[in-house]
Amino acid sequence: MNLALLFDEDFIAPDRAILSGRRLAHLHSVIKVVAGDTVPVGREGGQMGTGVVVRLTDTEAELQVTLDQPPPAPLPLTLVLAMPRPKMFRRILQTCAALGVKDLWLINSYKVEKSFWQTPWLSDQQVRENLTLGLEQSKDTLMPRVQIRKLFKPFVEDELPSLVAGRKALVAHPGASTPCPTHLNQPTVLCIGPEGGFTDYEVGKLEDAGCQGVHLGPRILRVETAVPVLVSRLFDACL
Amino acid sequence: MNLALLFDEDFIAPDRAILSGRRLAHLHSVIKVVAGDTVPVGREGGQMGTGVVVRLTDTEAELQVTLDQPPPAPLPLTLVLAMPRPKMFRRILQTCAALGVKDLWLINSYKVEKSFWQTPWLSDQQVRENLTLGLEQSKDTLMPRVQIRKLFKPFVEDELPSLVAGRKALVAHPGASTPCPTHLNQPTVLCIGPEGGFTDYEVGKLEDAGCQGVHLGPRILRVETAVPVLVSRLFDACL
Repeated sequence: MNLALLFDEDFIAPDRAILSGRRLAHLHSVIKVVAGDTVPVGREGGQMGTGVVVRLTDTEAELQVTLDQPPPAPLPLTLVLAMPRPKMFRRILQTCAALGVKDLWLINSYKVEKSFWQTPWLSDQQVRENLTLGLEQSKDTLMPRVQIRKLFKPFVEDELPSLVAGRKALVAHPGASTPCPTHLNQPTVLCIGPEGGFTDYEVGKLEDAGCQGVHLGPRILRVETAVPVLVSRLFDACL
Repeated sequence: MNLALLFDEDFIAPDRAILSGRRLAHLHSVIKVVAGDTVPVGREGGQMGTGVVVRLTDTEAELQVTLDQPPPAPLPLTLVLAMPRPKMFRRILQTCAALGVKDLWLINSYKVEKSFWQTPWLSDQQVRENLTLGLEQSKDTLMPRVQIRKLFKPFVEDELPSLVAGRKALVAHPGASTPCPTHLNQPTVLCIGPEGGFTDYEVGKLEDAGCQGVHLGPRILRVETAVPVLVSRLFDACL
């Protein structure tokens, strides 16, 4: 937690907020704050700045906050991910949030096992909590929007074409003949398949919707590694 | 496991190898091979190719192997990492191996907790096993060399200058004024600190040894995310 993210419900006055729970535990056990200390804070959806600990108990910390700096720029990226395996999902949410992804779509694919959609990590509350952890890691305040589409074909036929319109659109696919471009730094839609990749049928449908197949070289990377590699490659000027 | 890595001890003839243990379990339970199937294989330190399953039991699989393709090019990178927290260490080893890092140094730093060095994951066998998982993920055969230096100062004063000689050398440091360069694609030494970063003293010592401080923008990334981001940024032509 390199920044404590404050939500509307934490504020008791425009410049006063009360922290409890996980964030308070972090202040106590990791940062080891005492009254009078200053900690980095940000308001969800708003500015970042500092909070002075004006009151500290075992159950809450009251902060006098000054919010005067903008959060880092969002990535101009719409990331379309085949729903990852649950044990990797939380970490991928955190990584996406930390990298500045603001528009994330979780979609179905042939190689997404049905059970993946049953994970409790997919609840609104858990998704929000893991995105918060990513924002707090990288010092950002802008909560990503996550959208879930459990049917591949309606998403690709009915929604993807309008997402792609006016943007660069790519599907990362080890079998593609074109290498992934570098430093695009422009609005981009990027689709990444599941472990084992999209099927040829799926790649065809994504291409029909306007996405260009690109490869990342001979190495096959896990999704959690491919996301930072691709983001860094496409948006070197934005990180 | 996108490739089964074969070691010298697995070979019973120049073109015959026997798999057991984890790799056999993967063939049975994930790939669900039957006798006659072909699976991707590579020989540790050598060529890659295919293995035809000529005999399959519950305890071993005998493969007729043809090795005729080179592994992907190694990254021209010497990666110097402050020893990560144990729960992240295994994953970082796998990620480094998957990305093509071949020269990894694990060093001490003020913010590396002493207990990190006690982890059983640091045994030769566990390090090798996790590097193998990374190579098998990305389809590579060249085992990285991992070197452990539990004292910061002797490493930085006595060893680092000769590693740096004739190479680009960087230390990733959020406080640096220079942004990390892109597409260097040349022999490079890259130092990455622990959670919380190198101390100012340590950055000074790394700079004295020839490393230039560079930042990655306003976001503070976990080491497991920073490594792929930096590798992708520095070596876009090599991935």
